Amino acid sequence: MTDLEGPRDHCGVFGVYGHEDAAKLTYFGLYALQHRGQESAGIVASDGKKISEYKSMGLVHDVFKEETLERMPGHLAIGHVRYSTTGSSLLINAQPFTVRHAGRTISLGHNGNLINAHGLRKRLEQEGSIFQASSDTEIIVHLIAKNLWLGFEEAVVKALGMVKGAYSLTMMTEDMLIAARDPKGFRPMCLGSLNGGWVVASETCALDLIEAEYVRDVEPGEILFIDKNGVKSVKPWPETRSAFCIFEYIYFARPDSNIYGHNVYAIRKRQGAELAKEYPVDVDVVMPFPDSGNYAALGYAEARSMPLDLGMIRNHYVGRTFIQPSQTMRDFGVRVKLNPVKALLKDKRVLVIEDSIIRGTTARTRIKAIKDCGVKEVHMVVSCPPHRFPCYYGIDFSSRGELIACDNSVEDIAKYIGLDSLGYLSLDGLISSTKVEKEWFCLACFDGDYPEGPIDGLSKHCME
Amino acid sequence: MTDLEGPRDHCGVFGVYGHEDAAKLTYFGLYALQHRGQESAGIVASDGKKISEYKSMGLVHDVFKEETLERMPGHLAIGHVRYSTTGSSLLINAQPFTVRHAGRTISLGHNGNLINAHGLRKRLEQEGSIFQASSDTEIIVHLIAKNLWLGFEEAVVKALGMVKGAYSLTMMTEDMLIAARDPKGFRPMCLGSLNGGWVVASETCALDLIEAEYVRDVEPGEILFIDKNGVKSVKPWPETRSAFCIFEYIYFARPDSNIYGHNVYAIRKRQGAELAKEYPVDVDVVMPFPDSGNYAALGYAEARSMPLDLGMIRNHYVGRTFIQPSQTMRDFGVRVKLNPVKALLKDKRVLVIEDSIIRGTTARTRIKAIKDCGVKEVHMVVSCPPHRFPCYYGIDFSSRGELIACDNSVEDIAKYIGLDSLGYLSLDGLISSTKVEKEWFCLACFDGDYPEGPIDGLSKHCME
Amino acid sequence: MTDLEGPRDHCGVFGVYGHEDAAKLTYFGLYALQHRGQESAGIVASDGKKISEYKSMGLVHDVFKEETLERMPGHLAIGHVRYSTTGSSLLINAQPFTVRHAGRTISLGHNGNLINAHGLRKRLEQEGSIFQASSDTEIIVHLIAKNLWLGFEEAVVKALGMVKGAYSLTMMTEDMLIAARDPKGFRPMCLGSLNGGWVVASETCALDLIEAEYVRDVEPGEILFIDKNGVKSVKPWPETRSAFCIFEYIYFARPDSNIYGHNVYAIRKRQGAELAKEYPVDVDVVMPFPDSGNYAALGYAEARSMPLDLGMIRNHYVGRTFIQPSQTMRDFGVRVKLNPVKALLKDKRVLVIEDSIIRGTTARTRIKAIKDCGVKEVHMVVSCPPHRFPCYYGIDFSSRGELIACDNSVEDIAKYIGLDSLGYLSLDGLISSTKVEKEWFCLACFDGDYPEGPIDGLSKHCME
Amino acid sequence: MTDLEGPRDHCGVFGVYGHEDAAKLTYFGLYALQHRGQESAGIVASDGKKISEYKSMGLVHDVFKEETLERMPGHLAIGHVRYSTTGSSLLINAQPFTVRHAGRTISLGHNGNLINAHGLRKRLEQEGSIFQASSDTEIIVHLIAKNLWLGFEEAVVKALGMVKGAYSLTMMTEDMLIAARDPKGFRPMCLGSLNGGWVVASETCALDLIEAEYVRDVEPGEILFIDKNGVKSVKPWPETRSAFCIFEYIYFARPDSNIYGHNVYAIRKRQGAELAKEYPVDVDVVMPFPDSGNYAALGYAEARSMPLDLGMIRNHYVGRTFIQPSQTMRDFGVRVKLNPVKALLKDKRVLVIEDSIIRGTTARTRIKAIKDCGVKEVHMVVSCPPHRFPCYYGIDFSSRGELIACDNSVEDIAKYIGLDSLGYLSLDGLISSTKVEKEWFCLACFDGDYPEGPIDGLSKHCME
Repeated sequence: MTDLEGPRDHCGVFGVYGHEDAAKLTYFGLYALQHRGQESAGIVASDGKKISEYKSMGLVHDVFKEETLERMPGHLAIGHVRYSTTGSSLLINAQPFTVRHAGRTISLGHNGNLINAHGLRKRLEQEGSIFQASSDTEIIVHLIAKNLWLGFEEAVVKALGMVKGAYSLTMMTEDMLIAARDPKGFRPMCLGSLNGGWVVASETCALDLIEAEYVRDVEPGEILFIDKNGVKSVKPWPETRSAFCIFEYIYFARPDSNIYGHNVYAIRKRQGAELAKEYPVDVDVVMPFPDSGNYAALGYAEARSMPLDLGMIRNHYVGRTFIQPSQTMRDFGVRVKLNPVKALLKDKRVLVIEDSIIRGTTARTRIKAIKDCGVKEVHMVVSCPPHRFPCYYGIDFSSRGELIACDNSVEDIAKYIGLDSLGYLSLDGLISSTKVEKEWFCLACFDGDYPEGPIDGLSKHCME
Repeated sequence: MTDLEGPRDHCGVFGVYGHEDAAKLTYFGLYALQHRGQESAGIVASDGKKISEYKSMGLVHDVFKEETLERMPGHLAIGHVRYSTTGSSLLINAQPFTVRHAGRTISLGHNGNLINAHGLRKRLEQEGSIFQASSDTEIIVHLIAKNLWLGFEEAVVKALGMVKGAYSLTMMTEDMLIAARDPKGFRPMCLGSLNGGWVVASETCALDLIEAEYVRDVEPGEILFIDKNGVKSVKPWPETRSAFCIFEYIYFARPDSNIYGHNVYAIRKRQGAELAKEYPVDVDVVMPFPDSGNYAALGYAEARSMPLDLGMIRNHYVGRTFIQPSQTMRDFGVRVKLNPVKALLKDKRVLVIEDSIIRGTTARTRIKAIKDCGVKEVHMVVSCPPHRFPCYYGIDFSSRGELIACDNSVEDIAKYIGLDSLGYLSLDGLISSTKVEKEWFCLACFDGDYPEGPIDGLSKHCME
Repeated sequence: MTDLEGPRDHCGVFGVYGHEDAAKLTYFGLYALQHRGQESAGIVASDGKKISEYKSMGLVHDVFKEETLERMPGHLAIGHVRYSTTGSSLLINAQPFTVRHAGRTISLGHNGNLINAHGLRKRLEQEGSIFQASSDTEIIVHLIAKNLWLGFEEAVVKALGMVKGAYSLTMMTEDMLIAARDPKGFRPMCLGSLNGGWVVASETCALDLIEAEYVRDVEPGEILFIDKNGVKSVKPWPETRSAFCIFEYIYFARPDSNIYGHNVYAIRKRQGAELAKEYPVDVDVVMPFPDSGNYAALGYAEARSMPLDLGMIRNHYVGRTFIQPSQTMRDFGVRVKLNPVKALLKDKRVLVIEDSIIRGTTARTRIKAIKDCGVKEVHMVVSCPPHRFPCYYGIDFSSRGELIACDNSVEDIAKYIGLDSLGYLSLDGLISSTKVEKEWFCLACFDGDYPEGPIDGLSKHCME
Repeated sequence: MTDLEGPRDHCGVFGVYGHEDAAKLTYFGLYALQHRGQESAGIVASDGKKISEYKSMGLVHDVFKEETLERMPGHLAIGHVRYSTTGSSLLINAQPFTVRHAGRTISLGHNGNLINAHGLRKRLEQEGSIFQASSDTEIIVHLIAKNLWLGFEEAVVKALGMVKGAYSLTMMTEDMLIAARDPKGFRPMCLGSLNGGWVVASETCALDLIEAEYVRDVEPGEILFIDKNGVKSVKPWPETRSAFCIFEYIYFARPDSNIYGHNVYAIRKRQGAELAKEYPVDVDVVMPFPDSGNYAALGYAEARSMPLDLGMIRNHYVGRTFIQPSQTMRDFGVRVKLNPVKALLKDKRVLVIEDSIIRGTTARTRIKAIKDCGVKEVHMVVSCPPHRFPCYYGIDFSSRGELIACDNSVEDIAKYIGLDSLGYLSLDGLISSTKVEKEWFCLACFDGDYPEGPIDGLSKHCME
């Protein structure tokens, strides 16, 4: 699975308070979080009085020009990168989502997915609320607006108390930065400091880039109100079993990020080492699908004292979309992105290491390209268990039909992909690689045990 | 050295004759050759009567849209990707360079650098020739136009006989594809076949992508005239010592390409193995600068039975240019592209493997980022000898001042970069890794022995 | 006063129901209404189920491309052209304004200005309503949303009952076209028929262009609900004195339009004839400021049996903005647009005819250009009385400071402009030219008698 | 005939030497000459050493932005506006045409058409010259380059001595402005002065706009070399009968221009007066087709002491192209641009005054729109004789097939257009209106007497 074609996390968030170049820092923060969303990018900044915003479809480096950022002065900013399911890929759904209401500006960027969005929206509309877009995020803003008579901070607490599901969010007004994480802590979020100011981000790699110091992870159920008086932490809800998405450790998070102090690179290498124990296949060449399988492959090769090879060369100049070959040509698509080194693979027994298999189609075309080189055998090991259940908490495989492992045995999957053998890491092996207790995770995509109970008849209607 | 900042080869060329989708094949061919030039891209196609062309600044996938290619019908096409030195980065210098002259269209794409361009141009202007742009390529076209009374093929031979230096070029008229390589064969070029048609390309990776069959390398001093009568080979000049650029094997060519039957990936791994023999440094972590150092690093680790690590994470979403951090921020530039995995490197002795050092500035900032992680020691080995002499045959380090090794000892370079030790592969080790005879190569950038004799007072005035 | 620099009417509206090319008809309708708003243009269309919309800053012919309209199928459409005061010249304020609410789409285009907008908006926000833009139009939409529990048509009546001021508006849902005019009928609006379908438009010239048949003017206080059952007229409010804006007859409306059966061209010629009676100045050349003064000039010359001259040549290729001459040049601005024919004017006594003077600055620079030709005398007559009072009902001179006649005598104005004499048409002469009773008009900009009573302390906060 | 659809003159030229804002003055000069060419616009400027240029398709105000002009410093500039026949409407043919040759830059803008271009080009190509574009202009540049060994001024004289046909051209090098007019003086060109500097322009209206003082017309066969030493006039050729295009007085030139001291506005009014003598038709309404017929209409009405009406309202917001009505609509095209005032025309006998009829199609659709208003009769008079012969000297009716009067009697034309009667001004009446001798003019389009003798088998192959 590679970042261009695998499941795509729904968004990265970033916020900074107390740095004179808040918008530029946010730009760099989003750069570091780009892997969490490549569809649109947005920044909102404030100098304490005036809010400026800019968002557009595209990658961070395409969306923002120097001039744009220079027109966004101030010490306070939030930013957002987004990926969304087809159909709502519209600029109007790009974030942060900003409203000017009753003399105040409220802007909000959201990572996660609410599971009671549909009902909340319906009720609000009946009461006369008019929605601009189709995102969950706007529901939160309307709930805040309805409760502003309680005071702003109380309105935020009240609004978040009404939504269910996954959210790591950054919010701002003209003079305050707010960060909040849902009570189960599905998505990551961390707090950093920088020259007396404060930074919040989806992952620590964003802190590294701007040389902010890591302070701690934002806790599940915690809301931070950050302004000139400093950081005020509120935890309005009773503690509950946490449910962190283990797939962040397998695929989503960047390897140079730490989550709750655990380094993602190290965990992925351990996943490779566990795979080496479970599947010591006898081959001539050990290679990853780049770059998603790289880290488990390093661990696998090291554990078995075997040399590693990078048997597919990644083309770094591939655009997000490209022209389809005409019908007289065979499918060049896969070779445009990744070309196998024929001279290396010919007449060899090859083991490919990958982090996960979702639909199986990408693996299939890549394995075919490898087999076209004239290999003797081709095997594959995957650094997590089969994905059998859809995710309702912010990952883009929300129906059973999208998951090949849902209705097929491992043997059938191997056959579909064209492998001589296929091995998945066991759930125990996976947990063991994290060095964290099983209870701490949401494992629903592997075992169907949804943290907020069974979700009947829910078709995930919209995701952020 | 990485592809975005290292020396940049001057251009890739591609041509196809006898395939109904010639322009689209050329598009895919250029995609595979993008590493040879990222500044502009162009395609010219012909259906036997009408020529269509499109070129623009930018990467192949930005320049060409589906509609553009659909307006370029025909069975014959050539394409070009270009990098150039500052100052002539203008669309007018983008290639292929096309003229309509006396009822015929001539289009030409060029990889290399002519060393007698200045004098030829001056003489042509005195005779009334009017030049459109500043590239060497146009000189060849004027020389052909002046000699057309000899007949087209004779005019091509006559024109090429007047130029000196490096050229691998593809040319076309309405109904003929021409490929030519200078007598010393500085730059690579190969011939392939596809369903009865013919393909020429700078590297074999372009043949792989379109599933063309490799036939042979175009020979030094050979001109191919390809039309409905097939391929006609002409070798108008006496044989001479060849002078293939060894830097293609070290850095320029893609690892999945073969040149003269030698696989680049395998040669680079052997460079790593030679380095392991010459510099068996005692360290905890062995890592490359991605991606240029990857292959030598694999060979080094394998030769010493050490595990490999990918200690810097490459951000795949970096644009070619990006916004500069403001002065209140320290330089984020290097971390935007490559972030070291602090958790892996802290308190370790680290060995970094790289393919070459040109100016030393990039290595310096990267080593600094690694040292900021709190490493105990940091060493570096480089898979070629020091670059001491400028190149006049098509590579972008044309003055001694651009080469750190020109006036500095290895110790001084190590100190400048901030290393505990630095080792360069010996020239013998390098030659040995290629398994080819030393006499076959141009090694001028290492030993100053220029294949066409000493070049006095030449300041390379313009390059393609 | 010319259309590029004079007072600018706030918007033209158009709607069609029951024609298969509704969006294209609307495009042509807006073309005919372009003089009423040149800042943005928008069309919303429906095929009975699906709504499509497109709006952008710019003129109709710039905003809409053939492809755009082809993606807007359906038998129902509304359109809007807009001019606004500085500050809210944003795309977000472009109209029609569309919301998707509770399963229904409501789209609205508005010509006029509400005088109780500020208070209504404040109350709605306190109840939790979130506004997207700053236009009055959105208030009407929110009022409808709040009252939808009454049923759609009742909600429209209820909402319009709450707003005060001037509005001629077209509205639509997926399957209904609505047209409404405020009880005093400030702004014009007419109803036409076309092949069994229905058309509403600000002016009859839009009916002419699409060859629709004029049926009648929409009456003050009337709401038309038009759907597959035909046209339903509702008049929910008690009859009141009408207050039609007389400035439509003087300047705004196109001369080929009829309003309440009176042809604008004919009325303007009669204004010229009245001027001829009031100011029979003895001159050599009678000429208008093109094109706004053309019609009164024709009437003036005819009434006095004098030849007419077109002494200033209009440049038809002037963009809306243009580059300012640098300081070493004198002001070329006026001559770029209108160049006087020196050979005609030199040594002559000249009378210029214009429709109105608002700030006086444009007239001043033009008169200067005429005087630079070496005229003997220059006189001016204006086809309406002096503008002494601001307009709160949709015309862009909303503060007394913008009106030169507010604080200056006619003699002072003549002196400021540089005239030998200046004459304004009397109010009686103006009324007489219309052949309508005085009571039928809003004459507030001339006599300060506002139709809805004195407006204290009102600074017109936003206009449509 | 109106400027958007009538014959289109091929280009306007402008040049300035000795003013610090040369490029900006040229911008304003081109603004005034826009009626001579609306397809592309270009400016080249020099500060004595460095040349800057910018040209693009489109109108002057679209092509040039403030920033563009600010990057074009210097005291010397030339500019060009162009219209061309279909097929060569390419940016590459936009002018001024600039080459850098042998250390000098030569730039040239051309108004006119060469009649021996084809043969000259063929000969140059045989000698090895390579052309960039298809315009006549480039031939002149190549001829200069070939003769530079004679010295620059001599080379210009030599080159112009080899071309035949119509040319009014402005040329420049880094430090010299050149203006030249062909020996017969087909196209206009004048010289002005401004604060010690010099200006050349196609028409005097361009001098007026920038407040330059008219000095004199450039004479037929004259070449002006203007540099720091002042204006040097060269007349290398024997004097010959002049052949000024009379159509400039009828249609092309702006009414506020003077040519050879004769004011165009006055001449056109006299054409109307002559028409009144020749065709005193008995009607109720006298009106022009705006704006091309306006001036003759003024003269006609004045001569007969009849009132004038502007019976068609011109829409000032029409783009150059617009969306075609779909097939279910009748042709809205004519009414989009010009709407007749039905209330004025109904039941009247109408006389329309127009300057010329070329193909007759535009007149036909407009007359139809007038007849649709229910007029009793409609007559038309035209202020020149019938166009019976094509023009080879720079006007866009170059084949007999494009001219309705070529093969049709006046009665047939009247019938085709739908008129009750049609009258053309006699050739004598036309000459009389100019107050110049008949021998001074080229009247070939009316009488077929071509100034350089019969042109056999010539199909005008390319025009500037």
